[in-house]
Amino acid sequence: MGVTTDRRSIVRFVDGHGDTRADAIAVESPLTIMLDDEVLVTTMRTPGHDLDLAAGWLVNESGVRSPGDIARMAAFSSASDDDVDTVRVHLKADVRPPRPRAFVTTSACGVCSADILSGVAPPDGPTHTPTWRVGSDDVAPLLDRMREQQRMFDLTGALHAAAIASPEGELVCVREDVGRHNAVDKAVGHGLLEGMLPLTDHLLLVSGRVSYEVVHKALTAGVAGIAAVSGPTTLAIDLARRFDLVLIGFARDTRLNVYSGVDHVVGEDRS
Amino acid sequence: MGVTTDRRSIVRFVDGHGDTRADAIAVESPLTIMLDDEVLVTTMRTPGHDLDLAAGWLVNESGVRSPGDIARMAAFSSASDDDVDTVRVHLKADVRPPRPRAFVTTSACGVCSADILSGVAPPDGPTHTPTWRVGSDDVAPLLDRMREQQRMFDLTGALHAAAIASPEGELVCVREDVGRHNAVDKAVGHGLLEGMLPLTDHLLLVSGRVSYEVVHKALTAGVAGIAAVSGPTTLAIDLARRFDLVLIGFARDTRLNVYSGVDHVVGEDRS
Repeated sequence: MGVTTDRRSIVRFVDGHGDTRADAIAVESPLTIMLDDEVLVTTMRTPGHDLDLAAGWLVNESGVRSPGDIARMAAFSSASDDDVDTVRVHLKADVRPPRPRAFVTTSACGVCSADILSGVAPPDGPTHTPTWRVGSDDVAPLLDRMREQQRMFDLTGALHAAAIASPEGELVCVREDVGRHNAVDKAVGHGLLEGMLPLTDHLLLVSGRVSYEVVHKALTAGVAGIAAVSGPTTLAIDLARRFDLVLIGFARDTRLNVYSGVDHVVGEDRS
Repeated sequence: MGVTTDRRSIVRFVDGHGDTRADAIAVESPLTIMLDDEVLVTTMRTPGHDLDLAAGWLVNESGVRSPGDIARMAAFSSASDDDVDTVRVHLKADVRPPRPRAFVTTSACGVCSADILSGVAPPDGPTHTPTWRVGSDDVAPLLDRMREQQRMFDLTGALHAAAIASPEGELVCVREDVGRHNAVDKAVGHGLLEGMLPLTDHLLLVSGRVSYEVVHKALTAGVAGIAAVSGPTTLAIDLARRFDLVLIGFARDTRLNVYSGVDHVVGEDRS
């Protein structure tokens, strides 16, 4: 069993007052699955049951159907710490192997979270002007207004949404999709086609959780921050902090959690 | 704007009684993004705002930062119907192009939903024995028990879960992950490593929505059906029906929707 939750210091705002506290966060970190000495895929996952994950991935992607189809399988750490970041698999000779689907490949075996974080290029421009702030009570209403415009969700109960909010608190666009990342791509794409990039002083709103990839998309688009209905992962927080991106989760009514960039979030005693 | 919801005939059970009705379902269908004549990626998405989607994808994957970086971009249908399934992009010469991330490539331009459905191989073995049935009132309690075992969700509020339920109604395993697909891979992988594949007469339980890819993973594992807390997409329903896989959504208390394989779901008048 790996480390599945980790603690981060956050600021929880209730009715405009912020208190610092430690919070349990779902861990997200890369796992590389290798066939012999070839990288098959690097996936972001919650550590734990990594052999199950590799085995299940093989069922879907290859001819593996019984334990005997796997000659050997072992989880190990390719980095300096002890956290598992790689599973290496050897299949029996007559088993149909998967096609490589590697996105992230390096000359080393695995890719650790530190590699992922350090490999992200900084935003092209400033993500917020020095005086840019967001009010702690202004975030939940933005998410409410995004929700009101989720027409497909009303019909189907099964859609993610993403939106761009302007510095004046207006929704520039709301986009829906079955895929969380697609909804973000559609919202950012609208910004691009309108000539608005980098989206300095704008917020990216998302209906669900915030993973590493959502923060990556936000940084590339140059937004000042992300506000989400649900919570972020460890890797999302760590990446946001690296670039002082505001990261807000669980924003409902007059409550919200600030995971990164709290200096840009103001409560009742507005400064 | 594309077709974002479509109707499917479903059976809604309330207190053990099933009624057939039409329901609005979120459309999921493939979109291929091409750079000149090369396939960059095929992604499952909800139709509509396809140029936004392609543009946002390019922001994250390439040097595109302004509308002028895109020399031309057009959405079109490569199949016989009129639904958009492809966006072709031409970039200015000095713009860094994306790396191809194509998983699904064909000699044709696009890949339509019919191609996706017909391209799925049947399960290796029988997914249910002829007499296998699931009671309409037995499904929500299984999901409740999965929820009780979601320890990480309790801590973080941000985890997906998947589980395997035996024909006797026992949970074989519960697995959690930040990634919906990873949770399914972990549950199926456990089944593989225990030598249980194909998982004939078993149910796959999932905490969220059901997309095409989850049905694909279920078929490969050979389960009899899927029961979900939320709803499926059109492509998930269509694929499940092709192989008579039981597909149940929105199972809460004594209510549930059956989207496929209703002959295997029995209510109060058990037959």
